[in-house]
Amino acid sequence: MKRFITVDDVETIAIGAGILGTGGGGNTYIGRVWLEHELRQRAARGEPAAVSIIDADDLPDDCTTLAISKMGAPTVSNEKLAQGMEMYNCVRALEDYLKRPLAGLLIGEIGGSNSIMPLIAGLQTGLPVIDGDAMGRAFPELQMDTFSIGGVSHAPMALGDAHGNVVIFHTLDSAYRAEQYARVLTISMGGSAALAMPVVTGVQAKRYLIRGTLTLAQRMGAAVLAARKAGDDPAEVVAALGHGHVLFRGKITDVERKTTQGFARGRMTIVSFGGGQRLDIDFQNENLIARLNGEVVAVVPDLITLVQLEDGEPIGTESLRYGLRVAVLAMPAPRQLKTPRALEFVGPAAFGYHDVPFTPMPGDLLA
Amino acid sequence: MKRFITVDDVETIAIGAGILGTGGGGNTYIGRVWLEHELRQRAARGEPAAVSIIDADDLPDDCTTLAISKMGAPTVSNEKLAQGMEMYNCVRALEDYLKRPLAGLLIGEIGGSNSIMPLIAGLQTGLPVIDGDAMGRAFPELQMDTFSIGGVSHAPMALGDAHGNVVIFHTLDSAYRAEQYARVLTISMGGSAALAMPVVTGVQAKRYLIRGTLTLAQRMGAAVLAARKAGDDPAEVVAALGHGHVLFRGKITDVERKTTQGFARGRMTIVSFGGGQRLDIDFQNENLIARLNGEVVAVVPDLITLVQLEDGEPIGTESLRYGLRVAVLAMPAPRQLKTPRALEFVGPAAFGYHDVPFTPMPGDLLA
Repeated sequence: MKRFITVDDVETIAIGAGILGTGGGGNTYIGRVWLEHELRQRAARGEPAAVSIIDADDLPDDCTTLAISKMGAPTVSNEKLAQGMEMYNCVRALEDYLKRPLAGLLIGEIGGSNSIMPLIAGLQTGLPVIDGDAMGRAFPELQMDTFSIGGVSHAPMALGDAHGNVVIFHTLDSAYRAEQYARVLTISMGGSAALAMPVVTGVQAKRYLIRGTLTLAQRMGAAVLAARKAGDDPAEVVAALGHGHVLFRGKITDVERKTTQGFARGRMTIVSFGGGQRLDIDFQNENLIARLNGEVVAVVPDLITLVQLEDGEPIGTESLRYGLRVAVLAMPAPRQLKTPRALEFVGPAAFGYHDVPFTPMPGDLLA
Repeated sequence: MKRFITVDDVETIAIGAGILGTGGGGNTYIGRVWLEHELRQRAARGEPAAVSIIDADDLPDDCTTLAISKMGAPTVSNEKLAQGMEMYNCVRALEDYLKRPLAGLLIGEIGGSNSIMPLIAGLQTGLPVIDGDAMGRAFPELQMDTFSIGGVSHAPMALGDAHGNVVIFHTLDSAYRAEQYARVLTISMGGSAALAMPVVTGVQAKRYLIRGTLTLAQRMGAAVLAARKAGDDPAEVVAALGHGHVLFRGKITDVERKTTQGFARGRMTIVSFGGGQRLDIDFQNENLIARLNGEVVAVVPDLITLVQLEDGEPIGTESLRYGLRVAVLAMPAPRQLKTPRALEFVGPAAFGYHDVPFTPMPGDLLA
């Protein structure tokens, strides 16, 4: 089923994607402003000012699609704005390379600004965007997605900089190599780059996409806006939409953070308003592990998201600061991330937490 | 005119290329052993055990060729041996990418082991190698060649690692960007990688190659072997072949060296046997500037090469050590490196020596 995203939808998607970003994926504010600007520019020129959204089932089996996103630390991409054509350049370079036209663009990562980037690229290229993504949230490394988990090759993959340069990874022996080489190049490109990968067929897109996450983001954002208007608690409403709950409410009292090797890594402490309870959260771009008074209560790949207590606005790990009053949401990961094979890619051990078992929350983000 | 290189020619080429390497380009010993091994393996299997060498004039104007080499610090590639198929993988990847067969392989850098690498790749791919190169010596950075000086695009360019991975640079806005991105990837690939670039037509190869440098290397190596046999001074004979002279004889008394950002950088001091004279040489992979008692006497792009005093064996900057008895040769750069535009790429200022003017030695390496 084909539908359209117009300038009126961008704010809701940005809020919902921020919530699914679990602290990472890039602050959605810049993506939102950028997409709104692109849509308004087209409207002003009398051109169609809408992004086409289709379902995975609308793709022919033998068509070619690819996921488009930005790679890099949110702390960098918040300050180093895109030149604007990086994603377009990557898409066109891979079309040249493949000598095949593309049938649509995929969202690699629904969480954070990488939910919005494919919408911008869809507008620039005229290609539809498929409703769904390969993470159901945000993750810091590019092999942490359902395509990698499914064994889809990362090659060919394209990386583009702000000067029009595009590098194509022609052969890659592993997802980890893709991550390693793309990461050092991204750092050399200024800490932020456009990334096009993986290239998949219609069959593969249908098999591996987590369906409907763009719609979920939009519904979450709409719920936050409605709750603000009605004076309801946005955190409760949103957590329910994601089949989760509010884990904690309190004030951030400590944040340790450093940007190393292209990642924003750190740890924060939140203390309850009564002062009797304490929640510690480790993050690497995204929130990974929450400990309530020292005891693990939520673990990646389940979603841990901070929102502002008053208005439900999601808080990225790059925006954490002392004194913020927050609600912490916990929501169950999509089922595709919880198989034994998936946990090798996105479970706590994949982030270096070999002593923390993954104890899943009941349920599924999408059902 | 087509000729062949067989196992009997490899030692002479290795010695000559070492001399033209001006301390860099990679120690030729490993390249020599590798090429001899590949030739002997083919002979043992009853296959043709020779590399075809052709002149640039033998190339059709509209054919496609490319230069193949290894990139990285000699201090690394001396210890981290190649897997063996890196160059082959790059050549085949670019043929795939271009959808055109190649007519031959070019030597990007005659100095050091990069003179031998195209011979190995020629053997592996069955492609002839053109007699000539794009530097007439060795240089540490990939934009320091006659193709870059002539404005030939570096894209497409391929970089290959020991695990079969190949990265293709699809668009590159400048030679400096090519150098920057390829360098960080090479470091991430373990400090040493195969490099295929530039891709040029027959017309471009004829216009920009410094002709006959493979033959010159072979003649220099043969002269060293002959001088050893005859008991002559090899340094004098070789310097004359390169239209230069012996600048200094003495003992290395000091070497400062560090490997940073993929380069072996440093400075050495040589003291004359009487002790009254002192020669200081700065290097960045290659020898760059020689100062006799503090006064500049030879400057890049002119060639400064150390050979062992007794037998004329060239000495790479990675093999410098206290006590070595050496002769220092100075030879004039090929004319293609001495134009005002060329000096922007390979003159002393390109290495950070903004206060050192280039005072050329009289003559030309090849005439």
